[in-house]
Amino acid sequence: MKAIIINIGDELLIGQTINTNAAWMGQYLNSFGIEVESTRCISDKGLVIFDEIDVALYKADVVVVTGGLGPTKDDITKHTLCELFQTELVMHEPSYLRVKAFFESRGLPFLKVNEQQALVPASCTVLENMVGTANGMWFERNGHVCVSLPGVPFEMQYLMEHEVVPRIQQKFELPKIVHRTILTQGVGESFIADLLTEWENSLAVEDIHLAYLPSPGMVKLRMSIYGGADESVLNERIRRKEVELLEIVGDFVFGYEKETLQSVLVERLRGEGKTVSFAESCTGGMMAQKLTDVSGASQVFQAGWVVYHAQSKSKELGVDAEIISKYGEISGEVATAMADCARLKSGSDFALSSTGWAGPDGGDEIHGVGTIFVALSTEKATIVKKLKFGKNRMRNREMASDAAFMLLIKEIQK
Amino acid sequence: MKAIIINIGDELLIGQTINTNAAWMGQYLNSFGIEVESTRCISDKGLVIFDEIDVALYKADVVVVTGGLGPTKDDITKHTLCELFQTELVMHEPSYLRVKAFFESRGLPFLKVNEQQALVPASCTVLENMVGTANGMWFERNGHVCVSLPGVPFEMQYLMEHEVVPRIQQKFELPKIVHRTILTQGVGESFIADLLTEWENSLAVEDIHLAYLPSPGMVKLRMSIYGGADESVLNERIRRKEVELLEIVGDFVFGYEKETLQSVLVERLRGEGKTVSFAESCTGGMMAQKLTDVSGASQVFQAGWVVYHAQSKSKELGVDAEIISKYGEISGEVATAMADCARLKSGSDFALSSTGWAGPDGGDEIHGVGTIFVALSTEKATIVKKLKFGKNRMRNREMASDAAFMLLIKEIQK
Repeated sequence: MKAIIINIGDELLIGQTINTNAAWMGQYLNSFGIEVESTRCISDKGLVIFDEIDVALYKADVVVVTGGLGPTKDDITKHTLCELFQTELVMHEPSYLRVKAFFESRGLPFLKVNEQQALVPASCTVLENMVGTANGMWFERNGHVCVSLPGVPFEMQYLMEHEVVPRIQQKFELPKIVHRTILTQGVGESFIADLLTEWENSLAVEDIHLAYLPSPGMVKLRMSIYGGADESVLNERIRRKEVELLEIVGDFVFGYEKETLQSVLVERLRGEGKTVSFAESCTGGMMAQKLTDVSGASQVFQAGWVVYHAQSKSKELGVDAEIISKYGEISGEVATAMADCARLKSGSDFALSSTGWAGPDGGDEIHGVGTIFVALSTEKATIVKKLKFGKNRMRNREMASDAAFMLLIKEIQK
Repeated sequence: MKAIIINIGDELLIGQTINTNAAWMGQYLNSFGIEVESTRCISDKGLVIFDEIDVALYKADVVVVTGGLGPTKDDITKHTLCELFQTELVMHEPSYLRVKAFFESRGLPFLKVNEQQALVPASCTVLENMVGTANGMWFERNGHVCVSLPGVPFEMQYLMEHEVVPRIQQKFELPKIVHRTILTQGVGESFIADLLTEWENSLAVEDIHLAYLPSPGMVKLRMSIYGGADESVLNERIRRKEVELLEIVGDFVFGYEKETLQSVLVERLRGEGKTVSFAESCTGGMMAQKLTDVSGASQVFQAGWVVYHAQSKSKELGVDAEIISKYGEISGEVATAMADCARLKSGSDFALSSTGWAGPDGGDEIHGVGTIFVALSTEKATIVKKLKFGKNRMRNREMASDAAFMLLIKEIQK
């Protein structure tokens, strides 16, 4: 079962937008046992779109196209699809009402150009977009499928999850596939790979494939097993290997599957009925922002301070100015004091703090750029951890936030 | 002058790695007036590589291939290129010495497999890789060019800058190209398109192409002009259209080219010698996090509070509890009080605040989910803005932060 992904958009070709859709789609299709043969980015030109889809439909069972469905003039995918599948645009009543309601609920004018978004090729199956205005469309030709989706990532993802893959599963016989994803934090890919060499060699016997999926500060380990066997048998074979894996790298594991550090942290805190506060310097609000990404975080999140300056560390948070002048703003002592102050001031059970040189510039003779201290204050003790990263500001902030969350997750796990 | 980019690697197809090479290459080639016709990601299979390059060489003047040049087993690009260009691998002496020296200087063993990296197809022009071990290769067929480069981003970039583009400029006559990107915030693509209909129609005469590049809450308008004329003439033609554009949608414009709301905000504040503070409820630290993404934000950022609970709004920030109980936590009055308290408590010139139902759940009889108030406190007045979004939490938080930043940018602009 082969798929080709086609992403339409001049902004992709001139590199104004990085094509994250292709990566997400590849990973998602792959997880259902659908092999992505290739991905293509092409321009907004009708002829190019026509040719590319036409050829791809001969090569692959499923062609998933994104982009070119907005209301503006350069969006011609829909017209091209009509030519390709020899049909014409008709008004799709439910979509018309949905798009109209969408604009009205936001108090926005419903323009002629928006009306056009409810036009669909007569011969397609409409995949209604409940999170946006541009519908998905499903066409068939000689048993092969072409799906057209909007390019906005979360709309595309919604339609892939709710419409496209369920329909593919219905139409095609997909191989059984069982995945198990184990999430680790704080160690690099090559370090883990080194620890796992022997275990990894033993996977071949079980016909299990292992993929390392690294992102800054984090490595996901995904085991996959394909086969005709019963799903419970496949699951059991994976489970046995997981037990072995945890014995080797369990210390770095924080969760499974689609969990995130913040979702795990909120869940653990909620389970214990505990609360947390943050005192952030170099992470600049990222810990608070990440935690509050999780719906329901309000139950566990007490308060957050973003105290960038020495002065605000003392004035807003109450850190003893003498500690700052004695040890320097970027020091384990200041991180400790920040966490302690945040915990006491807010009355939360735990507090996390950060202070460091996030980069790309900065650093002094004691601590170079990329040095970041994170601390965890609890009723019983305060733990501080010194991290040493590179010069990439965004990456360093991300990894420091994650390291702080990991500290607290491990503390609760104890 | 057309180019096709081909990126080889299974890790790209299963979404293990996001294809940032394609974006970088597209942007780089485009800036020299080379039109990227399409980009393709394909798997590590010899037959697939052969076919894809073969076909692309008919379609495009230049085909740039990345990946598949490492020393491991699955790297077969070089062998496939020999088949395609009917030649064979020979030892390239300078490369042999360079790679050998590279390993010796790092105290690493120089293995048989590394020796092979100095093998090159006899008929190619070698593009020596001075920052890595795998060379680039330049082939010609019927006046069309195929370049093969390593997939490691900084090695690929080195070779593009030092070898590939200079050689393309020598071999082909490149057209002049000028882009101008104008950034707007707070209005949708269709709304702007509607305002610009007439202006947009007038672009054809000037041979200017317009692209709308939407992202949540933001639309980039990119004008492009190709032509044989002098660059200053092209610039002048674009500049005239920009002046017209600003007369129509100038109120929504915050910046140009690669600027972001936060980079513009930091720059404006710095320019005026002013400072800002944040009091965030539903944005949960995102304003602080975004602003401190900008290196040098410390000069303008005074302090931030993340006050999720009614209780912490009063306790940490000093919002009058009576205002909260009278108007409700999610109200323009509380947003106003939060901004005022943050400004006075921190001593900053400006303060921004947020409070609202970020979603996906929540909302009450007065304000539905997606209702968010942002406020700007200045010495003279406090402005509050009511926003009405959908149910997507991440998106709502993002758009609320952006709307708040835009409030302040416009205030400073006055």
